[in-house]
Amino acid sequence: MRACRGEAVPHTPVWFMRQAGRSLPEYRKIRAGVGMLESCRRPELVTEITLQPVRRHQVDAAILFSDIVVPIAAAGIDLDIVAGTGPVVAEPIRAESDLARLRAITSGDVDFVAQSVKLLVQELGATPLIGFAGAPFTLASYLIEGGPSRTYLKTKAMMYGAPKLWDALLSRLADITLTFLRTQIDAGVSAVQLFDSWAGALSEADYREHVLPHSARVLGGLAGAGVPRIHFGVGTAVLLRAMGEAGADVVGVDWRTPLDQATRIVGPDHAVQGNLDPALLFAGWDVVRREADRVLEQGRAAPGHVFNLGHGVMPETDPDMLTRLVAHVHEASAR
Amino acid sequence: MRACRGEAVPHTPVWFMRQAGRSLPEYRKIRAGVGMLESCRRPELVTEITLQPVRRHQVDAAILFSDIVVPIAAAGIDLDIVAGTGPVVAEPIRAESDLARLRAITSGDVDFVAQSVKLLVQELGATPLIGFAGAPFTLASYLIEGGPSRTYLKTKAMMYGAPKLWDALLSRLADITLTFLRTQIDAGVSAVQLFDSWAGALSEADYREHVLPHSARVLGGLAGAGVPRIHFGVGTAVLLRAMGEAGADVVGVDWRTPLDQATRIVGPDHAVQGNLDPALLFAGWDVVRREADRVLEQGRAAPGHVFNLGHGVMPETDPDMLTRLVAHVHEASAR
Repeated sequence: MRACRGEAVPHTPVWFMRQAGRSLPEYRKIRAGVGMLESCRRPELVTEITLQPVRRHQVDAAILFSDIVVPIAAAGIDLDIVAGTGPVVAEPIRAESDLARLRAITSGDVDFVAQSVKLLVQELGATPLIGFAGAPFTLASYLIEGGPSRTYLKTKAMMYGAPKLWDALLSRLADITLTFLRTQIDAGVSAVQLFDSWAGALSEADYREHVLPHSARVLGGLAGAGVPRIHFGVGTAVLLRAMGEAGADVVGVDWRTPLDQATRIVGPDHAVQGNLDPALLFAGWDVVRREADRVLEQGRAAPGHVFNLGHGVMPETDPDMLTRLVAHVHEASAR
Repeated sequence: MRACRGEAVPHTPVWFMRQAGRSLPEYRKIRAGVGMLESCRRPELVTEITLQPVRRHQVDAAILFSDIVVPIAAAGIDLDIVAGTGPVVAEPIRAESDLARLRAITSGDVDFVAQSVKLLVQELGATPLIGFAGAPFTLASYLIEGGPSRTYLKTKAMMYGAPKLWDALLSRLADITLTFLRTQIDAGVSAVQLFDSWAGALSEADYREHVLPHSARVLGGLAGAGVPRIHFGVGTAVLLRAMGEAGADVVGVDWRTPLDQATRIVGPDHAVQGNLDPALLFAGWDVVRREADRVLEQGRAAPGHVFNLGHGVMPETDPDMLTRLVAHVHEASAR
């Protein structure tokens, strides 16, 4: 939390996106036979899964185990998370008349999340819990495409060709996301991360016109809540400044932009998070250590640095490499 | 050709990546029952497919119909292009001992390409023909992964973890690519485009260390050939300067970086090519026209501008939209 606020820290804190997940044998075991959405709705299971990487790797923060489509499922959208594919939406949103299927949500609709957070805060003690939500653009892309996409063709066709429908859809998603994150904050999370995973498909001008106002409504709506707000996307080299301006305290950076350069882009009012390439974890410890040292060095340019990967942990990752990396980040940054 | 060299032009020239392809009904008809690799090896078929978009859209250049894996198939790699998936390599290259399966090629190994170019140059008259090859990094990614990838995990593991093997593989690929492009130039192409489609997966530092020397060997090897060299990749916002330095006369830019900004990055010695988002073609003509005008306006900052999309034409694109776009670019830029 101190690193997020740009305060002095005894060592650089570290956590990993997707630290709770398929890289861990204990995760694969406990998830066996339980669907992804179902597992996000069972507070005891969420608690255990969220705690697994904290116990194993000694990371400095837990991140709530959830999925970005959880709140839109709670909002009435018929969807499933298909193993090996991702979220699949039964009836995509393509027209004005589809909007009615996306209701507003109340905290009660996601009470299982509040329950999970409360259990976790008790278990975690001094270790902070990071809350979690997908940003309006990324959620919209799943709703419009009907599933994962490489081209975002239908998403962009609506964004450019039907701007009123687009704004109506993203406004609803912003409200849902805000309620989802407020529920987590009220239940006790110490920070939140807004994942706009696929915003990197856009130019800065399009991001500023069509996306930023909606993400700003989410992040701005949490301004008085007293928890650091982290904002992350992949391939966002041209968007980093705008993503900071959307109301982030911490800008998450993928491995394509060095952290010292990212700090020049986002300015001195933002801490940064990142940004070791998750593929590096397959290149042997010597390479990992060398590159981690480089990330730490470049992170010194920022007012605050939270060490992380530049994207989520890949399922094939050797978990021992992550454990070793946490110890190294602590040790090297404390020197 | 004049736009590539930064000379005055009567109007901004325009062609489209993947203009010869599945967006055209005449292409789908002529390809029916003929495999992709097979179709690249039949000079009469290559000629007809390459000419189709020139006839239909009145674009200012033809681009040789081929596939980036054609030269590595000629070099002895057992591979196929699977519809809906992409290139699939039977036995991926993962170790020193696998390198022997990637032979050097001679012009004779790709004589069908020389034949195609000669037929095309006759047919095209004054319309230039652009030659075509994949860059070493992108070719290596297919060889190492065994097919398309979203994460380039094995590719990066070799790049970071086995740099000698990596350099040996990319050196071989650079030689193969150079021979493949020289064959096309000797047969009469007017310009060449080197596609490093997936280089955007890398940071600039990694690109400069592990990729640029090999691409520079290809582009530098063509320096005296008297044909403009275009260098293109997707998601390369942080790589544009380095991709220009690799030996390009023209830097291809995707839609994420405005052309005026791209020109500031690559410098006054390079023309630019691009960069309308191919997804825009699904948003209606008014949006296409407005955005094409913006691209033309931003392109005026460059010493030369070749209008193109920011990536290939998507198969679902209405070909009439492309025809209309060509006419509009000609008319609007001549004013």
